[in-house]
Amino acid sequence: MTEQGVTPRSEDYSRWYNDVVKMADLADYAPVRGCMIIKPYGYELWEGIQAGLDRRFKATGHKNAYFPLFIPMSFIEKEAEHIEGFAPELAVVTHVGGKKLDEPLVVRPTSETVIGHAYAQWIHSYRDLPVLINQWANVVRWEMRPRLFLRTTEFLWQEGHTAHATKVEAVEETMRMLDIYADFAVSEAAIPVIKGRKSTQEKFAGAEASYSIEAMMGNTWALQSGTSHYLGQNFAKAFDIKFLDEENELQYCYTTSWGMSTRMVGGIVMAHGDDKGLRLPPRLAPIQVVIVPIWRSNDQKDTVMEAISRLQRELVDAGIRVHVDSREGLTPGFKFNDWEMRGVPLRMEIGPRDVQSGTAVLARRDILGKDGKQSVSQDGIAETINGLLVEIQDNMFAQATEFRDAHLHRASTYDELKEIVTDGWALIPHCGSAECEARIKEETKASSRCFPLEENKDFDVSGAVCPVCGKPAVGLAYFARAY
Amino acid sequence: MTEQGVTPRSEDYSRWYNDVVKMADLADYAPVRGCMIIKPYGYELWEGIQAGLDRRFKATGHKNAYFPLFIPMSFIEKEAEHIEGFAPELAVVTHVGGKKLDEPLVVRPTSETVIGHAYAQWIHSYRDLPVLINQWANVVRWEMRPRLFLRTTEFLWQEGHTAHATKVEAVEETMRMLDIYADFAVSEAAIPVIKGRKSTQEKFAGAEASYSIEAMMGNTWALQSGTSHYLGQNFAKAFDIKFLDEENELQYCYTTSWGMSTRMVGGIVMAHGDDKGLRLPPRLAPIQVVIVPIWRSNDQKDTVMEAISRLQRELVDAGIRVHVDSREGLTPGFKFNDWEMRGVPLRMEIGPRDVQSGTAVLARRDILGKDGKQSVSQDGIAETINGLLVEIQDNMFAQATEFRDAHLHRASTYDELKEIVTDGWALIPHCGSAECEARIKEETKASSRCFPLEENKDFDVSGAVCPVCGKPAVGLAYFARAY
Repeated sequence: MTEQGVTPRSEDYSRWYNDVVKMADLADYAPVRGCMIIKPYGYELWEGIQAGLDRRFKATGHKNAYFPLFIPMSFIEKEAEHIEGFAPELAVVTHVGGKKLDEPLVVRPTSETVIGHAYAQWIHSYRDLPVLINQWANVVRWEMRPRLFLRTTEFLWQEGHTAHATKVEAVEETMRMLDIYADFAVSEAAIPVIKGRKSTQEKFAGAEASYSIEAMMGNTWALQSGTSHYLGQNFAKAFDIKFLDEENELQYCYTTSWGMSTRMVGGIVMAHGDDKGLRLPPRLAPIQVVIVPIWRSNDQKDTVMEAISRLQRELVDAGIRVHVDSREGLTPGFKFNDWEMRGVPLRMEIGPRDVQSGTAVLARRDILGKDGKQSVSQDGIAETINGLLVEIQDNMFAQATEFRDAHLHRASTYDELKEIVTDGWALIPHCGSAECEARIKEETKASSRCFPLEENKDFDVSGAVCPVCGKPAVGLAYFARAY
Repeated sequence: MTEQGVTPRSEDYSRWYNDVVKMADLADYAPVRGCMIIKPYGYELWEGIQAGLDRRFKATGHKNAYFPLFIPMSFIEKEAEHIEGFAPELAVVTHVGGKKLDEPLVVRPTSETVIGHAYAQWIHSYRDLPVLINQWANVVRWEMRPRLFLRTTEFLWQEGHTAHATKVEAVEETMRMLDIYADFAVSEAAIPVIKGRKSTQEKFAGAEASYSIEAMMGNTWALQSGTSHYLGQNFAKAFDIKFLDEENELQYCYTTSWGMSTRMVGGIVMAHGDDKGLRLPPRLAPIQVVIVPIWRSNDQKDTVMEAISRLQRELVDAGIRVHVDSREGLTPGFKFNDWEMRGVPLRMEIGPRDVQSGTAVLARRDILGKDGKQSVSQDGIAETINGLLVEIQDNMFAQATEFRDAHLHRASTYDELKEIVTDGWALIPHCGSAECEARIKEETKASSRCFPLEENKDFDVSGAVCPVCGKPAVGLAYFARAY
């Protein structure tokens, strides 16, 4: 990072990201390679994400539970695709108290297996269904190229695991949770997302079908920000999750799983950040309003701080998350920059003249400079601020949507695709083959993101061909550089 | 467990505990030895505990953060007492993706070391102090004799870690957190606790002094339910946590750590449970009121369910956690027993006659039978119930306090101690030696619980001798059978 602040995005996006995460005190690398320490400011952001998701899960009938960190190696091996997908990333406990274990224990990379084993004991009859459970947990997938929040060996997430009597119900659940993730991203994180189905190559190891929400970052790269998997009867068969149906016949359950992780924190940084640093959507910002006192003499200080405590109380009472920056020995200008870098949506400045005139200066993070600055009356300040916070949230979503939409393009030829993915996402009729996806990845670094649900709704696949291989297309797919 | 319900406490306390935990669906053993699955009802109880603690931590200026699960073995070895205490319980990751690691990684048993390492990077000047951080996490300590919630190889907890400029501040913090644990236990869990200092033998590996809250279970055994450690400069020296003081001199910090875990769930079960099963304090009960509909004909059912939905809405609006047991094919009597076993503080029965007369029958879990049952008006039902929930909370605390106080005794001789600890806690002048503690443990199975703060306040130690060895006492100490 430079002395002035973060590295400009235009100069080096990757360094800009690292600078912002570190300077804004969101996270840092841990002494163990690939692991991270989530610092208080970053963790508060995660707590906001947790609250927004947990509320939605509970409103749709899900309960939280907790399953063990350690999974017997034999469990992981039961579902063939599953072990194949996860084997290279598994951390394994072999010794305890200096003695070797009979069976090595895997530190969970995800919990379908151990939860499947439990569900097989819990579920007996159709009356026990559906089982709708979520857990908040840490998981470990060894990461060779770690990036804070985006790819870390250990990360925090929630993983939902549900079991149903019918395929229809399980598919409905899969789509319900995908919708919940999209709603969360849009309403709370102010990030527009594209819902879609992952290609066969990109789906979860062991799933019948995987769906994701894909978000566009500030460099136009894609970030898979939440996934919802329809597992069919794959795990039910591997773990013997059966129930007696209403006709007293023994049937396998249909299961789903879905997750969102601390990766979302990185997504918020990259979807909204600018050259000055972080920009946080008001709904999730740990601090929504920072108050910077301005004074020269001690007399002025007393007057100003007195007014500030009154205003602070008013804002807290109105449920606004407010922080007063009363640090000594720092200029107001330094503080302004500091809080802009930390992405606080709204800054309030109060000096002696404001106290006298009963006003306050408000400066918006989403509109820098004079255009985003106004003097407002201290009367009804909470209402004024609540209104502005809604405006900022809406504006950030509009900005992100405008940016995204300007970088989504249809491609009819492979050459067009190659051109588009240098600065956007290309939508092509896609054959769905592993070969084409590998070739595109190799030649353009863009990976298959998804078959978007919306765009495929009215798409007539007959006659459409894949511009890469010329074979019949199975649907429209987005390709993009991705994290 | 018997067909009728849980094994009576008087018959076999240990089986009673297991029956309650399993029949009330709080938890179950996991496929990995010593690990547990916390089921939704048990996890909701834990969520209540989390909320009660988290609120208190934040109100006293603490922030949450997250540190890594894996700790390099070399870190654990840096503090001599620490590694000695934890070595036999450590689970160690040696392999990743099939390859052997250069340095084995310990799955955290507690995080003083890895957090100490981070604080050494973060803290430079007195201006950075105090650092007041808590984390919610899972930890692993290999357990040879597991018991659900009480002793499990993996458990969930919070661990606070703070760093201070002076000894005075660190000691104050240690006592502040001990007080917070006691306040939580009393106000939310309705469990009276004794605050005290652990003996040298029982203190945390690496601490200068450990304090705990000790609670009495229904069989008079003690449960250490929360601990707060003053770590002095031990970890600061091992991990080089230094700061420049106001005179620009380099000084070591003083640190503290403190934790409460899922063990508290077991404590609530055992402090309040009776022969019928669980009894949950209203403040923490996942369901505060269960409504059982009573009807014979379908006509009656419609009328009853309509009234119930109205009442349910009223209670939900008043912030009361309510559940309607609309299961078909089960008698009201079966449901009454079921919810009594699950410890729901208040049951509401509504039948056709209640609908007609605008009344409802309320039955208290803390007072079984006719004495705890009353017919109340449906008008102002939320207020009535809120009042009753407070009464139940208070009564449960009073019952637990009365029981505890009846089983606390002063002992002047070793024989008295032996007698007392068969059914209570014995308070003796104690020399504090490892030898006496070991002898008492060996001969009576009672362990040193603590030097209680309150009882030692006015105790004149001069002339007091340990009844076991006859040497001078250092203070009054409680001895008791313990989990």
